Amino acid sequence: MFVSWCEEAGCTIRVDKMGNIFARRAGADNKLPPVMAGSHLDTQPTGGKFDGVYGVLSALEVIRSLNDANVQTQYPLEAVVWTNEEGARFAPAMIGSGVWCGEFDLDYGHSRTDNEGLSIADELKRIDYLGDSDCSPFETRAAFEVHIEQGPILEDEKLQIGVLSGVQGMRWYDLIIEGQPCHAGPTPMEMRRDPFMALHQILNQLYDLIEAQSPWGRITFGDIRAEPGSRNTVPERLVISIDLRHPEEALLEQLDQTMRELVTEVSDKLGLRSEVRNEWVSPPVKFDEVCVNAVQKAADLLMYSNKQMVSGAGHDSVYVSKVAPTAMIFIPCEDGLSHNEAENASKEDIEAGCNVLLHAMLERA
Amino acid sequence: MFVSWCEEAGCTIRVDKMGNIFARRAGADNKLPPVMAGSHLDTQPTGGKFDGVYGVLSALEVIRSLNDANVQTQYPLEAVVWTNEEGARFAPAMIGSGVWCGEFDLDYGHSRTDNEGLSIADELKRIDYLGDSDCSPFETRAAFEVHIEQGPILEDEKLQIGVLSGVQGMRWYDLIIEGQPCHAGPTPMEMRRDPFMALHQILNQLYDLIEAQSPWGRITFGDIRAEPGSRNTVPERLVISIDLRHPEEALLEQLDQTMRELVTEVSDKLGLRSEVRNEWVSPPVKFDEVCVNAVQKAADLLMYSNKQMVSGAGHDSVYVSKVAPTAMIFIPCEDGLSHNEAENASKEDIEAGCNVLLHAMLERA
Repeated sequence: MFVSWCEEAGCTIRVDKMGNIFARRAGADNKLPPVMAGSHLDTQPTGGKFDGVYGVLSALEVIRSLNDANVQTQYPLEAVVWTNEEGARFAPAMIGSGVWCGEFDLDYGHSRTDNEGLSIADELKRIDYLGDSDCSPFETRAAFEVHIEQGPILEDEKLQIGVLSGVQGMRWYDLIIEGQPCHAGPTPMEMRRDPFMALHQILNQLYDLIEAQSPWGRITFGDIRAEPGSRNTVPERLVISIDLRHPEEALLEQLDQTMRELVTEVSDKLGLRSEVRNEWVSPPVKFDEVCVNAVQKAADLLMYSNKQMVSGAGHDSVYVSKVAPTAMIFIPCEDGLSHNEAENASKEDIEAGCNVLLHAMLERA
Repeated sequence: MFVSWCEEAGCTIRVDKMGNIFARRAGADNKLPPVMAGSHLDTQPTGGKFDGVYGVLSALEVIRSLNDANVQTQYPLEAVVWTNEEGARFAPAMIGSGVWCGEFDLDYGHSRTDNEGLSIADELKRIDYLGDSDCSPFETRAAFEVHIEQGPILEDEKLQIGVLSGVQGMRWYDLIIEGQPCHAGPTPMEMRRDPFMALHQILNQLYDLIEAQSPWGRITFGDIRAEPGSRNTVPERLVISIDLRHPEEALLEQLDQTMRELVTEVSDKLGLRSEVRNEWVSPPVKFDEVCVNAVQKAADLLMYSNKQMVSGAGHDSVYVSKVAPTAMIFIPCEDGLSHNEAENASKEDIEAGCNVLLHAMLERA
């Protein structure tokens, strides 16, 4: 449906070997690199209507508006759909933009399977979207992505536009605390080596540490398990996941160090063993200054209330920005809710984001 | 093997409908009620050599010693084996003594099944231990149980004998804390409703509350789960098990109330919902004063270092004490370790416990 709409709007369609779709509106000089805008059309199992789709349809709307207004750009424009951003069916997430930018190789991308063992390559072939063109970076004039914020900041501050300067760095860890399992009955409290006694102190200090980095420091304990996990036994081991985020690499590194120090200090004091195990790292991203300025100028020109901010979540633009000048535009979403069927955004804000995209693309094209 | 040893020692064997074994040594007047001593012969899958077995063999050793010394008692003596104390194969635990004392009815006891669906009644029949005599309380002069402590107190205080005055009351709860799930990235800390922010404060206050009741107050958080349990999502719900113990019912009730108040206070302050759900209650047990004194007198007479204490764990004596004058004797075990193949106790302490049992039984018989 999206491709048919792009064709109706006069675009030429190119599909690459990861199923990424590039719908091209010709410029005055088609030897010049394109100004791209796009996002993704896949969603979460119970996701909403806006996450990703809004960014793709905004790119099409920009092309339609330029058609309506008979505007020709110097540079060609491309509306882009990146394959499998969510990672809901095929892990990992952002695999289409990831292969394109060189983060993953094509074989890896093709061979990812879903829960039923079907591979991306086979499924792309089945729906006729295993394209011919190479999935590798080409020269790009600029790349934009408009997206709902998926958080509460813009709504809370009653702003219409977020001008994104980058994406937070993220570090994933498992914190493991090991004690001495014992029977809940016979062992006096002062003779126990109970991992929960360390955990509550560690949580307390980590929350304080992050509070001091308000509003951009973030820490999340998403999952926890106790081993052996028996109601009347002091656990031998607690394993708790930590998701740590900050837009500045130096600060993230400092938080990492302080966290390790305080975990060791608390554990040692209580006679427990502990380990902070690295699971995943995604360094902070700084978007391209020229592209960010194009977005800022567009938002100001259109007199939308706005502020510069960073994205707390990952997006295709994180990978795209590795090989192309990139920037992102956020609009508020209701109650900051996303990955949920109740996801919502107002028509006024949707229009505002699309207008900012139009003017930023025009500025670069 | 145990039954053949008892028969060699001149005992008459009686097996009841739950497979409980009573090996009787005649007294001078066999119309008088028996003085019993016993424990259990079943163990944990990777249990040790002492938990239960020590109590049963001590009772036999008392009978053998009286035979050797040609001592006749006024009252008959009985060495008792209670069926399925551990609950390792058939849940619940202590089912043999539980049916005997009237806590469970016989049909319930017979119909409990193991993981393969085999019932206690069928398995007792198969091994020829589904006895004829009624499984119900008979008049009992006194009931004793000697057991390893399964905790570190006696070893730590370098004492040989624990004179048990009773068993701690136990209450099991599930603490449920509900917040607002949100993405780990985009949501600033100060806008979150994160159940872990309540949990660490609640744990801190509960540990303080119990520390003030040292050494007999005990609190254990044995298991925990986060829902949905995703690394990059603030949990919607935490469920944590609480095992609360104290030998005094009034204090246990006061701890229960204070716990509920502080859970509500912390949750309300953070805008979270919480619930303290009752899962199980076992009131404190006070052993029979006459029987406890008999144990105390025996320990003092034999000049074993000793102190009065309560049991933190449940034992067959908890059920037996509902219908018979009961007391228990503890000896130290290495590192307080139990339910483990490394379980150990010294020959000197084993002998001491057995000697105390002998003299306590003689005093009542």
